[in-house]
Amino acid sequence: MNHSIVRYILGVVLKIEGGLLLLPCIISVIYQEQVGLYYLATGIVTFLIGFVISMKKPLQNLFSLREGCFSTALSWIVMSLVGAIPFFVAGEIPNYLDAVFETASGFTTTGASILSDVEALSHTALFWRSFTHWIGGMGVLVFLLAVIPMSGGGSINLMRAESPGPSVGKLVPKMKDSARILYYIYLGMTGIEFLFLALGGMPVFDSITITFGTAGTGGFGVLNSSCAAYTPYQQWVITIFMILFGVNFNVYFLLLFRKFKEAFSSEEVKWYFLIIGVSTAAIAAQLIYHAVAAGEAIRGALFQVASVMTTTGFATMDFNTWGTTSKVIMVLIMMIGACAGSTGGGIKVSRILLLLKSVKKEMVSFVHPKSVRKIMLDKKVVEHEVIRSTNVFFVTYAMIFIISLIFISFEGRDLITSFTSVAATLGNVGPGLGDVGPTGNYAFFHPFSKIVLIFDMIAGRLELFPMLMLFSPVAWKVGILHKKKEFLAKKG
Amino acid sequence: MNHSIVRYILGVVLKIEGGLLLLPCIISVIYQEQVGLYYLATGIVTFLIGFVISMKKPLQNLFSLREGCFSTALSWIVMSLVGAIPFFVAGEIPNYLDAVFETASGFTTTGASILSDVEALSHTALFWRSFTHWIGGMGVLVFLLAVIPMSGGGSINLMRAESPGPSVGKLVPKMKDSARILYYIYLGMTGIEFLFLALGGMPVFDSITITFGTAGTGGFGVLNSSCAAYTPYQQWVITIFMILFGVNFNVYFLLLFRKFKEAFSSEEVKWYFLIIGVSTAAIAAQLIYHAVAAGEAIRGALFQVASVMTTTGFATMDFNTWGTTSKVIMVLIMMIGACAGSTGGGIKVSRILLLLKSVKKEMVSFVHPKSVRKIMLDKKVVEHEVIRSTNVFFVTYAMIFIISLIFISFEGRDLITSFTSVAATLGNVGPGLGDVGPTGNYAFFHPFSKIVLIFDMIAGRLELFPMLMLFSPVAWKVGILHKKKEFLAKKG
Repeated sequence: MNHSIVRYILGVVLKIEGGLLLLPCIISVIYQEQVGLYYLATGIVTFLIGFVISMKKPLQNLFSLREGCFSTALSWIVMSLVGAIPFFVAGEIPNYLDAVFETASGFTTTGASILSDVEALSHTALFWRSFTHWIGGMGVLVFLLAVIPMSGGGSINLMRAESPGPSVGKLVPKMKDSARILYYIYLGMTGIEFLFLALGGMPVFDSITITFGTAGTGGFGVLNSSCAAYTPYQQWVITIFMILFGVNFNVYFLLLFRKFKEAFSSEEVKWYFLIIGVSTAAIAAQLIYHAVAAGEAIRGALFQVASVMTTTGFATMDFNTWGTTSKVIMVLIMMIGACAGSTGGGIKVSRILLLLKSVKKEMVSFVHPKSVRKIMLDKKVVEHEVIRSTNVFFVTYAMIFIISLIFISFEGRDLITSFTSVAATLGNVGPGLGDVGPTGNYAFFHPFSKIVLIFDMIAGRLELFPMLMLFSPVAWKVGILHKKKEFLAKKG
Repeated sequence: MNHSIVRYILGVVLKIEGGLLLLPCIISVIYQEQVGLYYLATGIVTFLIGFVISMKKPLQNLFSLREGCFSTALSWIVMSLVGAIPFFVAGEIPNYLDAVFETASGFTTTGASILSDVEALSHTALFWRSFTHWIGGMGVLVFLLAVIPMSGGGSINLMRAESPGPSVGKLVPKMKDSARILYYIYLGMTGIEFLFLALGGMPVFDSITITFGTAGTGGFGVLNSSCAAYTPYQQWVITIFMILFGVNFNVYFLLLFRKFKEAFSSEEVKWYFLIIGVSTAAIAAQLIYHAVAAGEAIRGALFQVASVMTTTGFATMDFNTWGTTSKVIMVLIMMIGACAGSTGGGIKVSRILLLLKSVKKEMVSFVHPKSVRKIMLDKKVVEHEVIRSTNVFFVTYAMIFIISLIFISFEGRDLITSFTSVAATLGNVGPGLGDVGPTGNYAFFHPFSKIVLIFDMIAGRLELFPMLMLFSPVAWKVGILHKKKEFLAKKG
């Protein structure tokens, strides 16, 4: 493996994080909070360490998918470890593991919290907490690609490792430009939501942090009641933007370049809206049946569905108390997740679509063996390779899910809490059902369980493989074999 | 479609069932129970209808996989509808849908019951109830193949539609001989278990019925306490035979033909025993931790694990009261199920193995893209086709599971009951957790839910595709298209 490039990437990531840690200092100046000093100190030290590590340029600028995965997984772990420091040293989260949990939950846009009273935090801490969502939403390495000159064909491998969804296409010939355009769209939409909220009467600080939480589909709020205290108008704005940030960003790209026909023909996006619509209708019907006023039921159902489907995790109602059908729907859309290429998590709508299409194809060929059928998505033939890796993704997801579930079951909590705590972290949602429902939090878990859930959050955000590779003996073994072969080849 | 052969098969199945319905009459003579008359009458009428339907020989003896699936799915539905009649007309199960549920549960070797007091049934009814397990265990159509002369290459398609597991090989060149050998093994093992139980002091009637329940991996008992009242020796015998009936029957075939090396090298069987061993150890440890005596804990854990893993469903302990880790393990092995080619249900160990192997392969090729690796099972390369259909099976299983879960959620029961009632019927296990745990039953479900669960039981037993095809518009549509093409081809 090309160690020098992994080291270099890690250094740059630290420099970026060091820089980003200075932003909360501005908040601390405005609100005259002393904790800002911890952010300043952490930021400077992190930047310097990053500077030293990345001083020596890598030997080669080219790197493989494997190195991309290693760099990505390692970067995300280090980012969480570093980002947790100010929470811990300022004493706002007195346990370092809890602070790491909160930060990993932030960067991975999960929104699962170990805090029972967020209102007790300083504005600086609340800002940093929500800001991690915004950073994690688009991905740090995509940002890196946007700003750092990197020659060679390796950058696609870095982007592929970090970006959500079954396949990453280049939007424009140059990867760097693609990354930039994505960031512009992200920045633009963030700005628009902020304006809608702030002009709608939400306090500016809330508007900023809630916008960060929505844009990254994260879910950290600044009030103990999450979003329940905001006005219906504000809740509608949040709902609409949660849904918009869960759409594949390629659609916005196409809209930007006036390719309206292509933009509106995305099958994934159609299904995404269909699932949101049907789920909302079913849940609203059950709420109305249980004597909730129609308007409130529709608003509440759509907010909660949008929040869970896009894996944001804001709440205006406690869906823990809903009927069984509504709960089943919530768990299902929690696992399905948002569109590929959005800031949302989960298995992704397009993967589910591909799975269903392959079942349909199999059934047809079972009935009529001579028929040769290709699986089509958006009127294009899906490569066999993509189908296979989608199947494998699904199985891997189930595997990680099951192993995590067994680990979490050691807690001895009820099955619902155990099951949904894994579903909500692996899917980057945040709240689950039972003890980890919208009104609960993750504080009560044993340190071991917290580590498992941190793993799940990062694995979910990076779509399993990078994390699996970092911790898999197979990957290391093959890597070593490969090295040995290379060595022998050079020798011979 | 070749309708005449589907009709013919259905007729023969009815004749067989009519004949089998006469067996309980012997029991009614012994115990001097009047209900025997209902079985006699149903048997004779069923036989006559079958005789009339199958009088006209089919035009062609050859039939496709599609016709095999249709015949199989239809046969199993009709068998359940007919087998339920004596329960209903005798008034022992006063609701016909309940009687169908009980009979489908019997034939599919599920063992889920709607009865709260089985001891109130007549011996005749208890015998018929357990006998359906024995019939369903090996499959009716396999029996048909064993006794009915059928020329042409179509018989493999019939057997493939009914037999559990990813692939059916021919044991011997002639399908008919394979079917016969399987039945001899089945019969032999049934006899041995009966002897072990009867000689071990179990009443003869219990020995017969419990043996039927074990052999078919069904799980209907004749006591309200299931198997808790039997002696440790008897429980050990049942445990061992449950495990043996969950082994791929090919292994016994190989043993019979003295191919010991091949027999003992089956990867699936090794993993099957490994999973049983590890699960038992973990559960026994948790039981001992909760102050159950070591001997009892090991016996209880192994009995319950064997019962659920082989999808039998007998119980000596109420695992509903166990710790969370034990419950999670029970739900997992409930879904994994037994070996392919056994009488057990579930996803099957070999499918899980193939799934894990394909993940491993994908990971290796992710790390080292140039490596070309084949998936091997028992030192043979697994065809790509098998892998693909295994993936599709897995996805289909999830799909049927989710749709059923949504339907069952309309009941408004807790998530655990809803989830495990689907898992336990689709996997042909019987008891689940919550209200459908070992001490509960399925009586409380709404008729609609019962129909859903009956579908799941038959779909699970026939490994999804036959039932899916019978109810799928795709299959019918393609069928019609195919017909139309054939017609046009003939014309043109």
